[in-house]
Amino acid sequence: MSQHKGKQTIEFKNPPTIFETASIVGKKEGEGPLSKYFDRILEDEYLGEKSWERAESRLQKDTAELAMQKARITDSNIDYILAGDLINQCVGANYAMRDFDSSFFGLYGACSTMTESLTLGSIIIGGGFGEKALCITSSHFCTAEKQFRFPLEYGGQRTPTSQWTVTGSGCAILTAHGEGPYITHTTTGRIVDMGICDANNMGAAMAPAAADTLTAHFNDTGRTPDDYDLIMTGDLGVVGSDILIELMLKNGYDIFGKHKDAGKLIFDLDSQDVHAGGSGCGCCGSVFCGYIFKELKKRKLNNILIMATGALMNTMTVQQGDSIPGIAHAVAISTSI
Amino acid sequence: MSQHKGKQTIEFKNPPTIFETASIVGKKEGEGPLSKYFDRILEDEYLGEKSWERAESRLQKDTAELAMQKARITDSNIDYILAGDLINQCVGANYAMRDFDSSFFGLYGACSTMTESLTLGSIIIGGGFGEKALCITSSHFCTAEKQFRFPLEYGGQRTPTSQWTVTGSGCAILTAHGEGPYITHTTTGRIVDMGICDANNMGAAMAPAAADTLTAHFNDTGRTPDDYDLIMTGDLGVVGSDILIELMLKNGYDIFGKHKDAGKLIFDLDSQDVHAGGSGCGCCGSVFCGYIFKELKKRKLNNILIMATGALMNTMTVQQGDSIPGIAHAVAISTSI
Repeated sequence: MSQHKGKQTIEFKNPPTIFETASIVGKKEGEGPLSKYFDRILEDEYLGEKSWERAESRLQKDTAELAMQKARITDSNIDYILAGDLINQCVGANYAMRDFDSSFFGLYGACSTMTESLTLGSIIIGGGFGEKALCITSSHFCTAEKQFRFPLEYGGQRTPTSQWTVTGSGCAILTAHGEGPYITHTTTGRIVDMGICDANNMGAAMAPAAADTLTAHFNDTGRTPDDYDLIMTGDLGVVGSDILIELMLKNGYDIFGKHKDAGKLIFDLDSQDVHAGGSGCGCCGSVFCGYIFKELKKRKLNNILIMATGALMNTMTVQQGDSIPGIAHAVAISTSI
Repeated sequence: MSQHKGKQTIEFKNPPTIFETASIVGKKEGEGPLSKYFDRILEDEYLGEKSWERAESRLQKDTAELAMQKARITDSNIDYILAGDLINQCVGANYAMRDFDSSFFGLYGACSTMTESLTLGSIIIGGGFGEKALCITSSHFCTAEKQFRFPLEYGGQRTPTSQWTVTGSGCAILTAHGEGPYITHTTTGRIVDMGICDANNMGAAMAPAAADTLTAHFNDTGRTPDDYDLIMTGDLGVVGSDILIELMLKNGYDIFGKHKDAGKLIFDLDSQDVHAGGSGCGCCGSVFCGYIFKELKKRKLNNILIMATGALMNTMTVQQGDSIPGIAHAVAISTSI
């Protein structure tokens, strides 16, 4: 039996197990509705470091170490690390991972990085090329704000459609042998650009990519929304989620009752002043590795689809008037195979 | 038989074929010793675009299209694209690939990206997860100079150890079925940081990573330099190449007669005023996809190891006084299996 179903989807003959996860988030995220699911909530968002960039690297390193500690392994047991973040040249991941004794693949998928890393990790493990892979992403409100928007001290006014970059990191360790939850399918996104130019409305830029990947997933597998307990995107926020639901209806799939978005779950949108919700690689990362993984382990969730979404522009392409390409990668997870 | 040999090396049971390649380079590169091997030499380094960033995207898109044209396929035949570049948030690759109808993985490995993409492409194809993968990288002197160093108009003085970022792109199409040249092994690098802080001496920062991966490759496979016609690094330049040879001697391997470096091959170091040689993802990319691939097809080379090297810092980590982590990924290629 071939493992590729349709052009974008893989069905694994040997589905990797998500053996263990870890999540660490900032103070604001720790005050949100998912508070009790995170492994650690930061009191000092500098993590004792002297710059925001070093703080984000430390956050990602600490999260990786915590995941290994929970899995009772060390980096000498990890064959491959797949990591990325939002900072220029991915230095959040690069500096975090330099102390580990594992082969390293640096990824850039903007906020889609969590499922990009889970997909490539699954391909490595599912293909028999390694025993254990560590998949990790992070984002930090302060590194992102400083790099993509305004100096923090400036206190710029935010538009209603803007999202709030999550300070957080999520890490998942995949193993070739285990008792699940299993990654059974991946549907890897194409780049979709519908001409949205507003960098303060990322949800709208990413929703068409999410609809493209989700439709491909259903077409390739013959599945429908009914096959899932949960379809979680990350991070379309309020605006992008509404657009996704509408686009999917046009494509013949009603996901309304099954869809949730990590950017809407992580904050209390009424009281936490985050406008359209959370964003950043660390949003989907920490919500999946914190909340969702624990619900899978408790069998409160059994069949889910996680689809992180990314906006693939930078500040210069926006300034040059280019539109914002989006991408989304879906990973199907089941507690039984 | 297991496909992983040692912790970092894969030996493929079903080695992918490098079916076709393409390379496009800038004017200065086209005046160098490898001139006749490149598919196209640019006369207009703006490629008709209005900014250097758009020019680099166009360069990468044109190179991908040329490779597909030479292979007599279209993007509808390509299952996965694996691409990266040096511009912030990898927009060179992201904007280049948005018109193609293939699943996309964005990579960041700095100048190691060509072999990072060949490695992950080989894992996808070798694992039976797709029929065709397109691996591509680019760099552009003007985007790199503007982003990492000085405004072009400034005409800053360059240090003797500095390298010249190549304007170029290399693209390789891997297929599950074919008559070679085959990717038989990959050895994926760990991040190595020996404390070098001089961003104008990247060769010195990357050489220890190259030595680490090359030693792992020999240890994992039991091979020696004698098993190869050529061990090509990219892009250590003059300074880094000398350090690599010395480090390898200390590790018990004499690579002197077998080693060449893409950064030294692409320019005439005596006459082209490039100081320590070429650099940038597009250097190893265009030298491999131009010169080396054609020598393999002609059987002038039969067993080679290509090892691209990357410096994983950004301008801010250098300004903050951090040292420069390096990485190197090796890919073994043979005309027969």
